[in-house]
Amino acid sequence: MTVRAANAEALRRLLAAEPVLTDCVSAVEAIGLEPGVVLHAGPPIGWQVMCAPVQGAIVGALRYEGWASSEADALELVARGGVRLEPCHHRGAVGPMAGIITRSMPVFVLENRAFGNRACATINEGLGRVLRFGANDETVLARLAWLRDEAGPLLGKALRRSGGIELRTLMAQALQMGDEMHQRNVAASSLFVRALLPSLVREGTGAALERLTDFLAGNDQFFLNLAMAAAKAATDSLLGIPGSTVVAAMARNGAEFGIRVAGCGARWFTAPVNTPEGFFFPGFGPTDANPDLGDSAIVETLGLGGMAMAASPGAARFVGAGGVAEALRITEEMREITLGEHPYFRIPAQGDRGAPVGIDVRRVVTTGITPLINTGIAGRKAGVGQVGAGVVRAPFGCFTAALEALAADDG
Amino acid sequence: MTVRAANAEALRRLLAAEPVLTDCVSAVEAIGLEPGVVLHAGPPIGWQVMCAPVQGAIVGALRYEGWASSEADALELVARGGVRLEPCHHRGAVGPMAGIITRSMPVFVLENRAFGNRACATINEGLGRVLRFGANDETVLARLAWLRDEAGPLLGKALRRSGGIELRTLMAQALQMGDEMHQRNVAASSLFVRALLPSLVREGTGAALERLTDFLAGNDQFFLNLAMAAAKAATDSLLGIPGSTVVAAMARNGAEFGIRVAGCGARWFTAPVNTPEGFFFPGFGPTDANPDLGDSAIVETLGLGGMAMAASPGAARFVGAGGVAEALRITEEMREITLGEHPYFRIPAQGDRGAPVGIDVRRVVTTGITPLINTGIAGRKAGVGQVGAGVVRAPFGCFTAALEALAADDG
Repeated sequence: MTVRAANAEALRRLLAAEPVLTDCVSAVEAIGLEPGVVLHAGPPIGWQVMCAPVQGAIVGALRYEGWASSEADALELVARGGVRLEPCHHRGAVGPMAGIITRSMPVFVLENRAFGNRACATINEGLGRVLRFGANDETVLARLAWLRDEAGPLLGKALRRSGGIELRTLMAQALQMGDEMHQRNVAASSLFVRALLPSLVREGTGAALERLTDFLAGNDQFFLNLAMAAAKAATDSLLGIPGSTVVAAMARNGAEFGIRVAGCGARWFTAPVNTPEGFFFPGFGPTDANPDLGDSAIVETLGLGGMAMAASPGAARFVGAGGVAEALRITEEMREITLGEHPYFRIPAQGDRGAPVGIDVRRVVTTGITPLINTGIAGRKAGVGQVGAGVVRAPFGCFTAALEALAADDG
Repeated sequence: MTVRAANAEALRRLLAAEPVLTDCVSAVEAIGLEPGVVLHAGPPIGWQVMCAPVQGAIVGALRYEGWASSEADALELVARGGVRLEPCHHRGAVGPMAGIITRSMPVFVLENRAFGNRACATINEGLGRVLRFGANDETVLARLAWLRDEAGPLLGKALRRSGGIELRTLMAQALQMGDEMHQRNVAASSLFVRALLPSLVREGTGAALERLTDFLAGNDQFFLNLAMAAAKAATDSLLGIPGSTVVAAMARNGAEFGIRVAGCGARWFTAPVNTPEGFFFPGFGPTDANPDLGDSAIVETLGLGGMAMAASPGAARFVGAGGVAEALRITEEMREITLGEHPYFRIPAQGDRGAPVGIDVRRVVTTGITPLINTGIAGRKAGVGQVGAGVVRAPFGCFTAALEALAADDG
């Protein structure tokens, strides 16, 4: 197969994806996570070189699972090799920021009905002090317990009753409503809640329903994790198309940025991550920013987030003084490194032209333009949580490494 | 007071409005509607000259109230003077299309917290065969009974528990999400449902809650009536500012288009309505269109709908081949006949410039530009229901008549 034919096939699969949200169950049920396994965002990484927010989140998860009774206990468990660290991506899952998933955590289950593959993601915890930004105090663990014991099971029951919620149409509509589905998910979250509502009130009652609806009403980023799982379900179908130079995953672990390429299967190509720039919450500044982190860049891999910046005047505020004009320019720039336009994800401000999709490592290397990613910014210190939001570029080195590997395979 | 000072005051009141949705109660509780009174859209009009959809809706309302047992019975009741017809606007209310309100119908109650006045609107019935488009069969009456007996009371309980839902911020956000809140209300409806949800699940249970959530999940135009009531609450505060040439209401009864002007209080200035142009549902065409109808043009009076066309790529589809470019042009044109820009209702596609607001009858007369209104299109025959959606211009004659009256007052 020529590169051209391989990439046409990759693009076909990417654009034909039909992500349907079907369930919410524990990670052990969904993907068979074993005791002692902790999934994290980004490409593989060892404990010693992990950044503080990821380490903090892991400590929190070990306490949440009852595998450790204190931070000291957790650190000791890690030190003696009692924890197996693995990327979410290796288990068909994705997680924002630290991306921690352990076996009892509830995860959304999505099916890509065009190709039969599945993907999972955790439930978005909301803003403030949350595990994904490295916070691990009692309020964080109590929320995780509630998600496990009450919210997750109720969401699962409602989803099973609904027969599945088709996300492609919902996401297309949210893009028309100013979400780029990385920095901004208020439209998608609202559409999703309204779509789930009839099933939710049939399965939930009393205080459990009240707590869940309070949570859904208060979390504008609720849909982020679903957009990520939808993108994961779409992009996983690309892995293993010989010769294809299309990017099938982008993910960061706080130290390295990793990409996967359709023609190279599950292999990662990594380079040191950049640190995002943007706006900081009061009391924080650029020196507080942790380097780029999270599996959420999977949405850019599907043409959302920074790729679709022009669709979101709200997200455009994070690119600085350029505003909407700069947002339009960014999406135009992203067209230089992509092979297609999404037939469903269309951008009103660009005459309903499709979002740029199908990042080609050859084009990145030739143009020197790297994908731009919208992202939250974690505090560098464990336990601080989110300190801002902004944008970051994927490092060039991943793409040159991938292209070399593709050339070697070809040779 | 000079005209300039009077208009500055009118604009100040218009822009300072704080509509808060506080309750849903019967029209007899909200506005003391008497037995035998039927409120209708637009300026005053007699039965004989009413168009068929409004007559059909009145027949339906008389049967719904139990004041008539059949169509023949209803027509006989009207013929012998047993029904008092009155504009919604005269009772602090607004209704879309036929705009029929009778005493047992539930109405939303909004407070303009900046000025203490209130406004009401019916609950949007959804699409298809509905009373407001003149349909009056058993399914229509059954839905009205359900709104009265179950949905309305539950919405009222939820709203009272919520302490009121502030609509200005919600509407500003919906405008950022592609709603112009006349033709398109999917964002506002979704945001509203999510905001009401925590109170709704605390007040509703079982089948009643299920039926209401099904209804809310399925009606993308649910918010239209709330936008209308918000606009009514804002614009009513203008009535009676001596010398002001700012339009305080626009409404149509299917025969005449009427405006009220701040400087002339409750007086109507009317001219024959135009017939909307746009897209028709399969099987219908321009010859099936009823002339322009409904109180919904109150949203244009507040800078929404056609005035804010540039905010809504979705609504722009109804202006024909020009699409988004034409939508931008229309909003620019509307700036020529308005005195201000709304500080909260901003348009992303125009650099977040405020929507044009404060229609000045002098500017309309001087420029020859009349307000453009987004609208549903009712079938001309009673019982047919909606046949399409499009745009229509307010007739020039209302504005010249108002300006003559203002000049006479001044003289």
